[in-house]
This record gives sequence, C-alpha cells and structure tokens, in this order.
Amino acid sequence: MPGGEERLIERFFRPLVSDPGAFGLRDDAAAVTPPAGHDLVLTTDAVIEGVHFFPGDPAQAIAKKALRANLSDLAAKGAEPLGFLLTLAMPKSLDEEWIAAFADGLAADIKTFRCPLLGGDTDATPGLLSVSIAAFGTVPAGKMVRRAGAKSGDAIVVSGTLGDSALGLELRRDPELAKRAKLSVEEEAYLLERYLVPEPRTALTNALRKHAHAAMDISDGLAGDLAKLAAASGVSAKVDVAKLPLSAAARKLLQFDPKLIETICTGGDDYEVLAAISRNAFPAFEKEARESGVTLTEIGSAASGEDVAIKGTDGQTLCFKRPSFSHF
Amino acid sequence: MPGGEERLIERFFRPLVSDPGAFGLRDDAAAVTPPAGHDLVLTTDAVIEGVHFFPGDPAQAIAKKALRANLSDLAAKGAEPLGFLLTLAMPKSLDEEWIAAFADGLAADIKTFRCPLLGGDTDATPGLLSVSIAAFGTVPAGKMVRRAGAKSGDAIVVSGTLGDSALGLELRRDPELAKRAKLSVEEEAYLLERYLVPEPRTALTNALRKHAHAAMDISDGLAGDLAKLAAASGVSAKVDVAKLPLSAAARKLLQFDPKLIETICTGGDDYEVLAAISRNAFPAFEKEARESGVTLTEIGSAASGEDVAIKGTDGQTLCFKRPSFSHF
Repeated sequence: MPGGEERLIERFFRPLVSDPGAFGLRDDAAAVTPPAGHDLVLTTDAVIEGVHFFPGDPAQAIAKKALRANLSDLAAKGAEPLGFLLTLAMPKSLDEEWIAAFADGLAADIKTFRCPLLGGDTDATPGLLSVSIAAFGTVPAGKMVRRAGAKSGDAIVVSGTLGDSALGLELRRDPELAKRAKLSVEEEAYLLERYLVPEPRTALTNALRKHAHAAMDISDGLAGDLAKLAAASGVSAKVDVAKLPLSAAARKLLQFDPKLIETICTGGDDYEVLAAISRNAFPAFEKEARESGVTLTEIGSAASGEDVAIKGTDGQTLCFKRPSFSHF
Repeated sequence: MPGGEERLIERFFRPLVSDPGAFGLRDDAAAVTPPAGHDLVLTTDAVIEGVHFFPGDPAQAIAKKALRANLSDLAAKGAEPLGFLLTLAMPKSLDEEWIAAFADGLAADIKTFRCPLLGGDTDATPGLLSVSIAAFGTVPAGKMVRRAGAKSGDAIVVSGTLGDSALGLELRRDPELAKRAKLSVEEEAYLLERYLVPEPRTALTNALRKHAHAAMDISDGLAGDLAKLAAASGVSAKVDVAKLPLSAAARKLLQFDPKLIETICTGGDDYEVLAAISRNAFPAFEKEARESGVTLTEIGSAASGEDVAIKGTDGQTLCFKRPSFSHF
C-alpha cells in the first residue's frame, strides 16, 4: 500500500518522465550516459514563495520560473540540457489541483526545452513553498563558456531587453504605478509576464559556444553581473546607459520616473545573456542570434583595468544605492 | 563592490571548494569530465527545519544530514561520489556564526566522503531553514544497482541496525521516555546521534555493485521500503522480525514498550542498505562488508508472488497503522 507521497509521484510526476534513465521515478536515483568527449555542466537554482514569486502566483508559472532559471544558466554557459532533478517543498495547504497545475507547467517546459525530468524529492513543509532544481547540461570537453575570458577590446553585448522583470515586480508592489505611468493594458501585462515567466535564451547556446569569450545570464541585475564578469575576466567594462535595450513598456515607465533606471540596472530576474565577444566575431554572432529569433545589442566595451561603469547620457557614471540584487 | 550574498559565499563556502571544475564558485555553473565508460548516477534529497531536524539543532549536524542522505542513495546504487550542488535557504535570523558552523560540518564530510562541492545557490528565506542537495556519482556503464532485480530465492539483507534513528526521534518528542525505559546516558546519546547524523554505508558501494541483485537505502522505514523493492522487482518478500538487527539501546526500548516495533519498522531516516542477493553470493558479500567495518544481517527471503510480510515471533504477519514514512 503506497503512502501519500508515492501516490502523488505516481499520479502527477511519473507521467512527465520519458527518459529511460529516470526508471519511471521508481528508483532512488537516475542513471544517464553522458555523450563521450563531453563535459557535464551543473547548476542549481531555487525559487521560494515570497522571494522569487508571490503567494498565490499560478502554479504553472512557478514551475516554469524554477526550471527556466536553470535553463538560462545552461544556455549562457553554452550547454545543451541533459536533464534535471526537482526538489519540491510543499505546504500542506496546496491541494491536488495545485499539484496538477504545477506538473502541467513543468510538462510544457520539459517539452519546449527538451530537458527531461530525471528524478526528485517531494516533501511536505510546515514552511513556505519552494522549488529547487538542479540541472545538467553537456558541452564538448573544455568548452563551457566561462565568466572569465573577456578580453580588452571586446564588445559587451546583451540579449533581449533589460529591466522588464524588475519593473514587472515594481508593478506588483505598487498596484497604482501602471495607471500613474499611463501604461496600456498590454504594456502592463507584458511586464508582469516577464516577471512571472522568464524566457531563457536557449537559442543562443551554440552561438555563445562558438563566438563568446565570456558569458553569464543576468539574474541579479546588469550592474552587479557585469561587475562579476569583469572581475572574473580581469578587465574593466564601460557601458552606455543610452544603449541599453529596453522594451516599449520599460521606456514608458522610465520616462514617467527616470529614477527607475536603478531598478532596470540592478533589479533581478532578467534572465538575459551578458556576453563579451571580439568585435570581429560580433557580426556573425549577431546574425546567428537574429536567425534564431533573439535580438542582441552591443552596450559597451571591455578594456584593461578593473573599473566597471554604466555611463549616463551626460557622460557621468551612474551611482546606485544597491548595485546588485542580493539576498543578504 | 560585492553584495552580501557574494561575501557570504566568498567567506564561508569558497574555502570548501577544491575541484577545479567548481571554478572557485565564481561562475554560474560547474563543469566536470565524467570518467569514460561510466554512467552518471543522479539523486537529490532535501532536509527541512521541523521536518527532518529540529529548530536549533547544531548547524554542523544539519549540513551532514543533508549531504549524507544523498551519499546514502549513491552508496546503495553502487555509485562512487563525483560531487554535489547545494541549495541553502536561510532565515535571516541565522548569523555568521551559524553559517561558519554549517560550513564546518560540510567541510568535514566533503573530506570524509571525498565528495566535492561543485556549486550552489544561497537564498535568504522568510520561511524555514532548508538544505537541498543534488549529488552525482558514477558507475561503470549499465551497472547502477537497481531497486528492480531481486530474484525469487534471494536473501534479503540489511546493513547496520534498524530503527535507531526513529527511536532517537521518539526520544526527542518524549523527553521522559529515556528515563522511563531506564536507558543509560550512553544509550540515549547513541540513539539521539543516530537521528541527528546518519552513517551512509559508502563502504558497501563496491560490494553492492559486485554482488547485489537489487538494493536501496532505507529512508522511509523497512516495511515501506521493502515493499518498494519487492514491487519494483516483481517478487514477494518475507522477513522475520526476530532477525532484525537492533542496537542494545533499541532492544532495551523495545523491551520497555513492545509497540515500538512499529516505530522500528516504519520510522524514517535509517539510512541503512536493504539488498537482495543470491544465497551463493552472500558469504563473499558478507565478508567484504565485514572487512570494511559494516555488519550485514540476513532478515528474510524473496520468493515468487507479490506479498510483503514482516512476521512476528508468533509467525503472524505484523500489521502497522502507517506502513511507511510519508510526508503526505
């Protein structure tokens, strides 16, 4: 007679599993044969209620955000997904309808991103809902795209648009902001969605591995993450705030309140790619990205030295109160 | 200027890292080259405050319990540890002294079990302390020891002694029980320690891979886990309660209150190995185990059919209210 935990796994999670190495979630561990001549790339990211999402956010979105945060790391490292392990800590207040929706969200992304569920651990918690994922990818041996590797003279580029997710979070925290800033319904919905369900730039995986000297995903804000990339690479970096790619909705909010530039540059959850690339390689990189549907924008340059600066339109370096999203 | 999170990682976790593939925790992901001709074995287990340990339990013990739960899985699957990823969700009330102690506990076990820290994710949580670990091991291709694989006629064997951890938990819940049962100070301390810091049977890894038809670690109680192993293997299993290996402290408690046999058979956190092995192979297996310091006990047999029974001294099958530890 299986316990409740077994029954939940059997009913909701087993249908998500197709990789034979997951043994139908009926063993203590999964077994996979990594492709010969490849390195494993390993990453882990968790999302916690009240930290990375709001209580009551849709279960599908929570599942997707948890998986996509990890897929974003793999993509920025040039790694193809191999699979993931899921740790779910669920308050007992969540019912089977919630679990079904969570599994639905996960199932959709497993398919979209071809990243199989390999195993997991499910616990009832007296605390808050949290979803921790460990994801594994592969790269040809020695080819993981590092944070270290940017060279003096490299172009600093980013994918997509920056700040949308952090502005979406602002809209959640200040429910009147959208109205005051005269955002359209679509603009508001766009920013809220960007916060809720990030878009990992998996389409860039191959191009990054081929062309980038260094890359990382922007999860703690451009300012802080650029500082990390520059420090790891031993270069300085100068970025021009006027070049930052912004969505129409973000532009409108920024026009309404110019101080939001700090939110855009230091808020979390962009899940865009930040990369350093030689100027010679940039056209080919940009073309490949465009062909896979991702826009790339050059926002600045790396040089010798160690300063990192985001320059305002007046040429002055922007100063932020809180240069990087940090939990502590 | 690094944020608080960076500083914590730099100060407390970077010193734990020696594997070059962890890049000093200064990248978004780790990269490891798995040995050729081997499969990866992947597992994940979390420990949560108020579920797997008590609020205020020593930080060192919490770190060890989290890692050892995963090492226990790898050992039971015949896998050599390759490394692990750590997700730590910390309430802000925990100070740096706590983190230092947690890192100390982790450092000791990284060394003891030669399982390197490869990366992680640290979040401040408004909720409860939780530690989620994903661990990776390797086995020669196709050689992971499965739950499925037990054959009719196999001996059912377990390592160490059963029920100590669940009885230790009883002592925590009922602070007068040790006195009422006249446990010595040493006996009480032994059971409490078994609950707090399990002993993963990593010494059995090779012998299991060589000899066992099927194996798993007992983490949800013998009764439920034996049922899982038998179901996965398509066999029945009969175990004799008189043969269960019990510590002196467990025997004394059981003598005081015979109903505690249910706690012993269905409580969680044994982290002993349950295996099915042909009777021909048993002597060699037992010898190898003994030489590596682990006692093995034959507790019953597998047969055709599908019933699983723990037989009492009167020959009757024991009936439990709650056959397996389950979170739901």
